[in-house]
Amino acid sequence: MMMADLDTPVLVVDLPRMERNIRRMADFGREAGVKVRPHVKTHKIPALAHMQLASGATGVTVAKLGEAEVMVDAGITDVLVCYPIVGEDKLLRLAHLARRAKISVALDSLEVAEGLAKTARKHGVHFDLLVEIDSGLNRCGLPPGEPVVALVQRIVRLTGVTVIGLLTHAGHATRAIVPDERDAIGRYEGDCVVATKTLIEAAGVPIREVSVGSSATVRTSGRVPGVTEIRPGTYIFNDFMQMTVGACAEEDCALTVVSTVVSRPAPDRAIVDAGSKCLSSDFHRANSRMTGYGYVKGSGGAMTVARVSEEHGIIQQSEGWPLCEGQRPISIGDRIEIVPNHACGALNLWDTLVGVRDGDVEAVWPVLARGKVR
Amino acid sequence: MMMADLDTPVLVVDLPRMERNIRRMADFGREAGVKVRPHVKTHKIPALAHMQLASGATGVTVAKLGEAEVMVDAGITDVLVCYPIVGEDKLLRLAHLARRAKISVALDSLEVAEGLAKTARKHGVHFDLLVEIDSGLNRCGLPPGEPVVALVQRIVRLTGVTVIGLLTHAGHATRAIVPDERDAIGRYEGDCVVATKTLIEAAGVPIREVSVGSSATVRTSGRVPGVTEIRPGTYIFNDFMQMTVGACAEEDCALTVVSTVVSRPAPDRAIVDAGSKCLSSDFHRANSRMTGYGYVKGSGGAMTVARVSEEHGIIQQSEGWPLCEGQRPISIGDRIEIVPNHACGALNLWDTLVGVRDGDVEAVWPVLARGKVR
Repeated sequence: MMMADLDTPVLVVDLPRMERNIRRMADFGREAGVKVRPHVKTHKIPALAHMQLASGATGVTVAKLGEAEVMVDAGITDVLVCYPIVGEDKLLRLAHLARRAKISVALDSLEVAEGLAKTARKHGVHFDLLVEIDSGLNRCGLPPGEPVVALVQRIVRLTGVTVIGLLTHAGHATRAIVPDERDAIGRYEGDCVVATKTLIEAAGVPIREVSVGSSATVRTSGRVPGVTEIRPGTYIFNDFMQMTVGACAEEDCALTVVSTVVSRPAPDRAIVDAGSKCLSSDFHRANSRMTGYGYVKGSGGAMTVARVSEEHGIIQQSEGWPLCEGQRPISIGDRIEIVPNHACGALNLWDTLVGVRDGDVEAVWPVLARGKVR
Repeated sequence: MMMADLDTPVLVVDLPRMERNIRRMADFGREAGVKVRPHVKTHKIPALAHMQLASGATGVTVAKLGEAEVMVDAGITDVLVCYPIVGEDKLLRLAHLARRAKISVALDSLEVAEGLAKTARKHGVHFDLLVEIDSGLNRCGLPPGEPVVALVQRIVRLTGVTVIGLLTHAGHATRAIVPDERDAIGRYEGDCVVATKTLIEAAGVPIREVSVGSSATVRTSGRVPGVTEIRPGTYIFNDFMQMTVGACAEEDCALTVVSTVVSRPAPDRAIVDAGSKCLSSDFHRANSRMTGYGYVKGSGGAMTVARVSEEHGIIQQSEGWPLCEGQRPISIGDRIEIVPNHACGALNLWDTLVGVRDGDVEAVWPVLARGKVR
């Protein structure tokens, strides 16, 4: 089957680009001397996780327990659950998972550590813990330095769990204005965790893993001496946010939503059949001209997905009027390929991902870990 | 099972509230003398569509063909596909559907009408058409008046299709600042379509349906003389946008995401396990104080979902510091219920919806038409 025969909207990955993205990150890990533990919440597809492992990744990272279950069921034996596990249901599921695979968990509180320790003792399993540090994202994670030292000193008294490392995720780097700012965020991401590790070890607790995240920053933070592991996710596909922050080029963006023009109600407006149910409602302001809900592939930014509702993408020309692609007016039935702003959010909306090589459909993968919110 | 026993995050509907919302809209339709054709893209659940039909609805509206297939498979026999159908795959599916149910289609171009007419003739079926008018949303739909008259005059020459009506959807009313503005949008929504109908009939083409949409406006547009049908969707649940535009009260909001606090890394910040994968990334600026990704139920706006990432909701106090609910500090393990900004976008993220009555779990519905983007 050819890509041109697929009914739209459809989520497509360019396989040569994806394979190159996987290879380059593996090469970077070897060159920088850090382990690569890809965050598979980006794709949610075991087959792609296995490709990453085949390239040399030491394990995978997941955002939710339900994703961990899908990956362990697919034969993956080393999983970092990068999320605080709270509540009896989840602790029970985690204990069962720990009998089948090596499971480590991220957390930032004594409460969560105590729940894990109690569960580990009750079920005769053991959890490795990584304490999360806030390197500027202002989400989970304690401030670097003393707050983390104090927490680690309390956790080490618990049995059933072992603090093996520290982690952080500088996800805010995709909001950087220029590559220099992104690099500065990456340097701080590595530095603040390494500095905290030094404090903890001075207090007598050995820390063997220093793990940093974010596709936009790992090429900087992964080179900071003392960092042992990187957890990039988006790099496998890349997206418009990675592109505008200079973490990839347009030709490294492997993921697109292929859409069809279904309405042409005004000269300055075309409606495609891909809206927020295909692209997500993640808005991105790339610069003063390019804002919207996705990048129109090959447009050089001249066209944009200016607005979305659930089933409608409103395509407009970034400047000027009327709307045309090069010299070609856009007509009902024309196809438009859109690079999502944020690949991870887009994948969660789709039941299948279609893999294409040179216009030929080579694979159709179910997005097995889609919608695993628990 | 009690609601308190459900693991989080979980999407819950308060059944008494939902039933009251359905009943009130049915009552309004009878009182105003208009048919009610609920837009089931809001809930995507056949069982709820059947409740709406039992309340007196004459049929359902869907946004996509895949939703129509789910509803027809569930025994629903009158479906308006409120979307331009483009492409051979979809035309073939639509033809099969038209053998099993009464199918009408919305469109705004001769190209789409020609495709439908050709398909109808080839497969021996017939499609009723409604021509879409843009009443200010600036999405699909031609400008009111002459452009619509001209299109209708060209479509009536085709065989296999019949223009039976006009429709519009003033979805932009949820962005109104005050209820008066919302009402003005509703009046124009009705007026512009009725005026266009008069022009078309003066040109010799009878128009029997004048259909208006949007939960926020139908109580105004549904009273405009000449309007025959309303297509509200969100009203079954209501949401924060409906609430802030004055289309419902807080106690009419039936849908919530129940979440758990998993991290408390700073005095002014709590992290819950519901992010954009649960609430969507639909942002809403209710007023200068209340902006964010959802309304914290019972907070009176004092707390807000200030930011989301896929698995994290960042709860902050709208003003001041520290973060507490009334006098109760928010701790890890506490539950927080969030009314989504936009119910329709939220439903599409979930595989199941849990129905609760007085704290007791009464139903678990699969969201059968979730993810039907084609």
